[in-house]
Amino acid sequence: MAHKPWLQGVGLLVLCLLTRQTMTSAQQLAPNLLPIPAKLQTGTGSLRVDAAFSVALTGHSEPRLDRSVERFLHQLALQTALPLAAKPANTPKATLVIHTDHASKEVQELGEDESYVLEVTSTGAKLTAPTALGTMHGLQTFLQLVDVSTDGFAAPAVTIQDQPRFPWRGMMIDSARHFTPLEVIKRNLDGMEAVKMNVFHWHLSENQGFRMESKKFPKLHEMGSDGLFYTQDEVRDLIAYARDRGIRVVPEFDMPGHATAWFVGHPELASGKGPYEIERKWGIFDPAMDPTNERVYKLLDELIAEMAKVFPDHFFHIGGDEVNGKEWEANPKIQAFMKSHGIKNNEGLQAYFSERVQKLVTKHGKTVVGWDEVLVPGVPKDIVIQSWRGQASLAQAAKQGYRGILSNGYYLDLGWSAARHYAVDPMSGDAANLTPEEKQHILGGESCMWAEYVNAENIDSRIWPRNAAIAERFWSPEDVRDPASMYARLDFIGARLEWLGLTHKSYYHKMLQRIVGPASPQELSALRTLTDQVEPVKDYTREQTAPAQPTSATPLNRVVDAVPLESDAGRHFGELVDQYLASSCHDAAAEARLRTQLTAWRDNDAKLQALEQRSYLVKDVAATSQDLSALGAAGLAALDAIAKGQTASDAWKSQQLAVIEQAKKPKAQLLLTPAAGVQKLVEAASPGGACFAAKP
Amino acid sequence: MAHKPWLQGVGLLVLCLLTRQTMTSAQQLAPNLLPIPAKLQTGTGSLRVDAAFSVALTGHSEPRLDRSVERFLHQLALQTALPLAAKPANTPKATLVIHTDHASKEVQELGEDESYVLEVTSTGAKLTAPTALGTMHGLQTFLQLVDVSTDGFAAPAVTIQDQPRFPWRGMMIDSARHFTPLEVIKRNLDGMEAVKMNVFHWHLSENQGFRMESKKFPKLHEMGSDGLFYTQDEVRDLIAYARDRGIRVVPEFDMPGHATAWFVGHPELASGKGPYEIERKWGIFDPAMDPTNERVYKLLDELIAEMAKVFPDHFFHIGGDEVNGKEWEANPKIQAFMKSHGIKNNEGLQAYFSERVQKLVTKHGKTVVGWDEVLVPGVPKDIVIQSWRGQASLAQAAKQGYRGILSNGYYLDLGWSAARHYAVDPMSGDAANLTPEEKQHILGGESCMWAEYVNAENIDSRIWPRNAAIAERFWSPEDVRDPASMYARLDFIGARLEWLGLTHKSYYHKMLQRIVGPASPQELSALRTLTDQVEPVKDYTREQTAPAQPTSATPLNRVVDAVPLESDAGRHFGELVDQYLASSCHDAAAEARLRTQLTAWRDNDAKLQALEQRSYLVKDVAATSQDLSALGAAGLAALDAIAKGQTASDAWKSQQLAVIEQAKKPKAQLLLTPAAGVQKLVEAASPGGACFAAKP
Repeated sequence: MAHKPWLQGVGLLVLCLLTRQTMTSAQQLAPNLLPIPAKLQTGTGSLRVDAAFSVALTGHSEPRLDRSVERFLHQLALQTALPLAAKPANTPKATLVIHTDHASKEVQELGEDESYVLEVTSTGAKLTAPTALGTMHGLQTFLQLVDVSTDGFAAPAVTIQDQPRFPWRGMMIDSARHFTPLEVIKRNLDGMEAVKMNVFHWHLSENQGFRMESKKFPKLHEMGSDGLFYTQDEVRDLIAYARDRGIRVVPEFDMPGHATAWFVGHPELASGKGPYEIERKWGIFDPAMDPTNERVYKLLDELIAEMAKVFPDHFFHIGGDEVNGKEWEANPKIQAFMKSHGIKNNEGLQAYFSERVQKLVTKHGKTVVGWDEVLVPGVPKDIVIQSWRGQASLAQAAKQGYRGILSNGYYLDLGWSAARHYAVDPMSGDAANLTPEEKQHILGGESCMWAEYVNAENIDSRIWPRNAAIAERFWSPEDVRDPASMYARLDFIGARLEWLGLTHKSYYHKMLQRIVGPASPQELSALRTLTDQVEPVKDYTREQTAPAQPTSATPLNRVVDAVPLESDAGRHFGELVDQYLASSCHDAAAEARLRTQLTAWRDNDAKLQALEQRSYLVKDVAATSQDLSALGAAGLAALDAIAKGQTASDAWKSQQLAVIEQAKKPKAQLLLTPAAGVQKLVEAASPGGACFAAKP
Repeated sequence: MAHKPWLQGVGLLVLCLLTRQTMTSAQQLAPNLLPIPAKLQTGTGSLRVDAAFSVALTGHSEPRLDRSVERFLHQLALQTALPLAAKPANTPKATLVIHTDHASKEVQELGEDESYVLEVTSTGAKLTAPTALGTMHGLQTFLQLVDVSTDGFAAPAVTIQDQPRFPWRGMMIDSARHFTPLEVIKRNLDGMEAVKMNVFHWHLSENQGFRMESKKFPKLHEMGSDGLFYTQDEVRDLIAYARDRGIRVVPEFDMPGHATAWFVGHPELASGKGPYEIERKWGIFDPAMDPTNERVYKLLDELIAEMAKVFPDHFFHIGGDEVNGKEWEANPKIQAFMKSHGIKNNEGLQAYFSERVQKLVTKHGKTVVGWDEVLVPGVPKDIVIQSWRGQASLAQAAKQGYRGILSNGYYLDLGWSAARHYAVDPMSGDAANLTPEEKQHILGGESCMWAEYVNAENIDSRIWPRNAAIAERFWSPEDVRDPASMYARLDFIGARLEWLGLTHKSYYHKMLQRIVGPASPQELSALRTLTDQVEPVKDYTREQTAPAQPTSATPLNRVVDAVPLESDAGRHFGELVDQYLASSCHDAAAEARLRTQLTAWRDNDAKLQALEQRSYLVKDVAATSQDLSALGAAGLAALDAIAKGQTASDAWKSQQLAVIEQAKKPKAQLLLTPAAGVQKLVEAASPGGACFAAKP
C-alpha cells in the first residue's frame, strides 16, 4: 500500500499545464454540480421547490428505490428546511417523476449501467435511468441543483445526460491503523454517494490491528484488535448500507506482510519465532507470513471461505505490498525451501505465495485485487492491479492484459492540495499511449485514506472536501479539468456535505477549543488567525519531523492534527497576491486587502503570548506564530516600498528573504502557506521586481 | 403553560442590583465550574491527566455506576484526545478512586441525597458519595476541572463538598408543537447531566400533537401525531437513559385544554361538536375536554393507568393551563350540568375536572403536578404547582402548604439573556418572606422550551448555553449570582457542551450556509457580520411581527431562526462601549477596537447587496443590514466628534438619535443589539455628554 516517496514533480507539472485551460460548457452552465455531468443543456426558467414538492416512482420497483427517495426527501428537507413529505407520493402529478427501467444485479457488478437522464423544466422534473444505480445518481444531481433563489428554493431548468467515465470509482479507508467507528464509515459512504463514487475498499487488517470478526479463527480479532473490531453482523449491515447507495464493498486482508496483528493469536503463521504483539509504531516491519508453511494456506483457505460469504462483492483484495523479506532471510527452513523449489529471491517467494492465495480466492468465487507487487510473471489475467506506483506501472500491466486501478496521486494522507490530486489522471502519462483496447483495462481509481494520523474526530477533514475533486476526476469527461472551476464548486459542495453528517468543517472549531482551553474569544480568534494559514507537513515527513516517535497511542490533539490538510485561506492569499502583481501593483483594492491581512498577521503573535504560557498545545506553535508575524511585517515592508515608488535595496531584499527562508522551515510539523506569496511581494518590490519593471 | 406576557421589569431590576455584587470565593477559585459547588477549597499544584489515567470504583456497585464511569472516560478522552482506557481499571492505585456508599432508590425520588465530596491532589483524586447520584455529579465536576495546562492536561488540586440547593432542577421540552427526535432529547439529557439538572419534564400532548403511543387508545397517537410519536419501547429506553444520568422523567399530558390533537381520534371527549383536526397554528384555542362527560374520565382512568406503568416517576403532570372556556359556554348540556351542580363559572368547572383527574392520578399511585390553574380551593395538599405566574403565586401556594416549582422567568423561548434568567430566584420576591417551613415547599424550578419556533436543527441553540445559567441558579448557593462570572464560565462550559453532541454552536454556520447558498467566503462573512449583531424579537412578539401567519409547516430557515437568541458579539460590544465611557473616553485601545467594529458595520451593507439579489433569505434582512451600516456610521461620527474634542450639536444629536430609533424598530423579526451602545456613544458626544463632562 505504498508508504513510499514518489515522483512528486509530475503531478505539479500537469497542474501548471492545466491551470489556464478554458472551462467546458458544462462547467460554465452548472456551477454547483460536482462531479460535472457528461452532457448538460440549460433550459429556461427554474423549477420551484416548495413544501408541495413530491416524488413519484414508476417502472421497476424495489424497496431500495423507495429508501433512496426517502433519503432524498430527507436530504432536501435538510437543505431547504422545508416541511416536505417523508415518502414518495407516487401520483402522476408529482413534481419529480422517476422512471427506472429494470433491476440492477443482485450483487452490484463492475461496469453495470449507471447512466441517467434528468430533465428539469419550470413545471416539473423527470428522471429516467436503466437501473436503480442511475436513478440514485440522478437524485444526487437533483439535490445539487436545488438552491436558494430570489423567491424561494428552486432548481434551474436543465437537461442532463450523464454516465461515468470509469466504472471503478473508489475510496479506501484504512480501519486498521486507527479503528474507524461504523458511524464514521457510514457518513463517509453518504459523502461518496453524493459525489457518485461506487467502491468502498475497506482495509481491514494490518500490523496494528485485525479489525474483522472471524468466527472460524476468533483469535485473529480477539487478540489482534484491542477489542476494536467489526462484528459480522455489523459488516453485513454496512454492506447493505453501501448497496443502498450504489456502492460496492471490497474487503482487503493484507498479506503476507502488514500482518503482525494476525500473529498475536496465530504465531504459527509467521516466518519468525514470535511471540508477537500488536504493532504500535508506524512503518514497514519484518513480520511476514511463512509461504512455505502449509498451515498458512489451510487457515487462509478457511478464512477466505468465511469472508467470501460475508462480503458478497466479486472482488477480494489480498494486499501483497511492502514485504521486506527479513524474516524469510532469517529462517533457515524457508531458505531451504527456496533452494529446493528453485526460488531465487524474496520476490520469487512472494510470487509463489501470491499464486497460492490467488487460487484460494478463485476457488471461493472471487477475483483477486492486489497492490502492484502481486503482478509477477505468470499471474492469471483476471486479477486487478491497484497501483500505488503510478500510471507507468498501470500502463505496463494493461499492455499485458491486466486490469488496473490507479491510486498513485490519490493518497489523501499526503496532504496534497485538491488541485494536485485533481490534475492526476488515470489515463495520463504512459497510459495515454495505450491502444483503445488496452485502455479498457484501466478501470478507474481509488483515493486512499491511510490512518496513521487520523481518528474519528479528524478523519472527515482528511478526506473531504479534497476527495470530491478526485471523485470528479473518475466520473466526469476527461476534459473537465479546470482547477478554478473545481475549487469554486468544491467550496460550495464541500460545505453542503456537512448536511450529510460529515464533520470536515465543524470539527475544526472544536479541536481549536481544546487547544486553547478556557481562553477569551479574542485569544481563540488569534489562534485561528495563525492556524488558518498553516498546513501539516506534506508527503511522508510526519514521522521524521515528530517531536517523539509517534505510535498508535499518540494523542492527535495538536495543531498539526487540527488544521485542514489544505488551507483555503492560504490559497486565497496566494490568489490575492497574484491578482495584485498581475495588475503591476496598481490594484488598490487588492493592496488594501493585502495590507489588512498582513497587518493582522504582524500583530497576531503578541495576542498569543499569554495563551502560550497557559497551554502546551499553543506553545507548540509559538515559533510558527513568530514566523507568521515576521511574514506579515515583511509583506507590509514590501507594500510600503512599492507605495513609495522606490525600489527596495538588495540588502533589504536579502534580509527579507532570510526571514522568509526561516518561515519556510517546518516547525511543529507545520508549513506556513503565505511564505510563497510574501516572497513574491518582496521580489516585486526589489530591484528588477514586477512592480517597478512595469510601473508607468 | 403560559403563553402570556408578564412583569418583565422585575427580572431586569434584580439584574441591575446584582451586577456589581462581588464574587464568592468559589467563583474566584473555580473559574471553569458550572454550577459552582457549595464549598470549594483550593490546594497546591495539580493532578496530571495523561494516557495512564485510570478510575476505580469501590463500595456499593451497580451496572449504572460502571456505565457512568465508561461515559466519563469517553468524555474525558474526547476533551483531551488522550487514548484512555475505555473501562474502569478498579485497582487501588487508580488515579481517581471512587467510593459510593449505598444504592439510591430504584425509582429516583425527589429529595434523594445527591451530595458528593471530591478531593484532587497532585498525586490522585478521591470521589466519595452516599449514593450513585452524588457519584455521577462528582464525575461531571471532575470533567469540568480537567483542562489543558503548561505541560499537558491537568486538574487543579481542590477539595469540593457539594450538594444542591434545590431538589427539583428541571427542564421541560415541548415535543408536541414540533416533534423532538429522540436523539435530540438524548443529547439534551447529556447536557442536563453536565450541569446537574435532575428532572426532564416531557410535554407530550398539545393541540398540535399527541406524541405518545397508547396501546389502549391507539387513535390518540395514530390520528393525532402525523406519524410523529414515541413508541412505548422508545420511551422506556429514554427513561433508562435519563436514569443513567441521575435524571427523572415526568410526563405531561395537558388537559382539559391544549388537547385538540386528542379529539381527532376521540371527538367524544371534546365539549364541541367536532370533527377536529390537528391544530396547525399557534395560540390558545377553544377545544377542551367535556368535564361533564363520564366517558372522559373512563378514558383518562385507563390512559393514566397505562402511562403510569410506562413512566415510573412518582409525579405525573396533568397540565391544566389556559382553558378559554368557549366550548363550555357554547354547549347547553355543559351549562345545564353546571347549573344542576352549583358550578358558578368556568373556573369552577375546571376545578371540578381537576379534582376528578387528580383522584385518578392518585389512584394509579402518582402525585399530581399541574400549572398554576390547578390550584383551586380544596385541592389535596400533596399536589405540586408549577408556576408560570411567578414567585408571588408560588409563595401563596407555599403558605397554604402546597409544594411548588418556579418556571416564571425560565421560559427559554422568550429570548431573554442568560443574565436575565440568572437573576430570577425561586426564593426572591414574595417567596423571600416565607417562614423556613414554608420555604421547604419551594422545591426548585424548571426551564421551559416551548416549541413553536424550534426544530431538531435549532433547538439546542434555543436551550444552550442559557439553560446552564438556570441550572446554576437551581444548584449553587443563593449568593452565587455574579453575572460576569457566570458569563465567563458559560462561554467556556457552553463551548464544551458541544463535546456531548449538542449542536448549539455548530448549527449556526450550517444555517447561514443555507441562507446564502453558493456565495463567496466574503459574502458569507458579510452576512455573519450582520447576523452576529442581531437577536430575534423577544417575549411573545413573533406571531404579531410575522410576515405571514406562522404554522407548524412554516419553514424555520430564516435569519430569525438561525441566530442565537442571545448575541455574544452584541454583549461584548456593549461591554466595550461601557469600558470606553467609564474611562471618560480616554481609553485609546477601546476606542480603536470600537472604530474597527463600527467601520466594519458601516461598510458591510454594500457587501451584501449582490447576495440580497440572489437569495430571498438574505433579502429578508436587507433593511436590518442598512440599519447596521447606519449605526456604524453614527457611532463613527460620535467617535470623530469626541476625537476632535468638540461637543457635537443638538441638531446632530437629534439626527443621530432618529437613525438609532429607526434601527431599534424590529425588522424581519430581528433586533439590532448594538443600537443601545451606539446611542450611548452619541449621547456621550453630545452637549452635556459623558466624554466632555469629564474631559480634562
